[in-house]
Amino acid sequence: MNKIEHIGIAVNSLEKSIDVYQKLLNTDCYKTELVVSELVNTAFFKTGENKVELLEGTAPESAIAKFIEKKGEGIHHIAFAVDDILAEMERLKQEGFVLLNEQPKKGADNKMVCFVHPKDTNGVLIELCQEIKWI
Amino acid sequence: MNKIEHIGIAVNSLEKSIDVYQKLLNTDCYKTELVVSELVNTAFFKTGENKVELLEGTAPESAIAKFIEKKGEGIHHIAFAVDDILAEMERLKQEGFVLLNEQPKKGADNKMVCFVHPKDTNGVLIELCQEIKWI
Repeated sequence: MNKIEHIGIAVNSLEKSIDVYQKLLNTDCYKTELVVSELVNTAFFKTGENKVELLEGTAPESAIAKFIEKKGEGIHHIAFAVDDILAEMERLKQEGFVLLNEQPKKGADNKMVCFVHPKDTNGVLIELCQEIKWI
Repeated sequence: MNKIEHIGIAVNSLEKSIDVYQKLLNTDCYKTELVVSELVNTAFFKTGENKVELLEGTAPESAIAKFIEKKGEGIHHIAFAVDDILAEMERLKQEGFVLLNEQPKKGADNKMVCFVHPKDTNGVLIELCQEIKWI
């Protein structure tokens, strides 16, 4: 785990929340991205070396819509940048953590991602993410 | 808002959770601190330029114990470092955000802090924090 890459916040309305977070963070949203495979629409803000990612579900069966239905809007996950996601997944498995996907999958913002089950981390959903390099 | 200073995670047992987060983050807890005025015991980890703070309530009436009773363990707040907490509090009030304390109060880790009401920020409890300088 190198550093926190971003914090993901589940919201009902991306449009309304972009306005709120622009005011709160005093910085403009620099990117929005629809991740069709994950049924989410996302918006990104820079803050120091981290990002804040707002996530809106695009269908009732999306993980974000289900999260909001159960818990309400709020922080959904913390994502940590890693240099070698496969090695970090293996290290965490050896430490006894349960991974939610056995293979890295494509996430937003040009990343391969893997989630750690929150039952092992005091209810916190942890994402590992590694930048995809196109060579 | 300069950057994310730390992420606060509410836990039932600081002792057990320190062990979990040492394994997860692959780094040692570098400090624990009891904040008597806030009825919390805290533990800190470094990750990049940020910190992860675990918080355990020391009494049933602490904000952390109440949070866990209502929502379960999990992410409690995001803290942003600011250079001038009074100016930032004023800016946020002007933008329409509601502050939970009208004056900065002493928090953990040598900081003056102020919280923003989560009703205005999609359920996310935001902390502003400014390092106390002893001159």
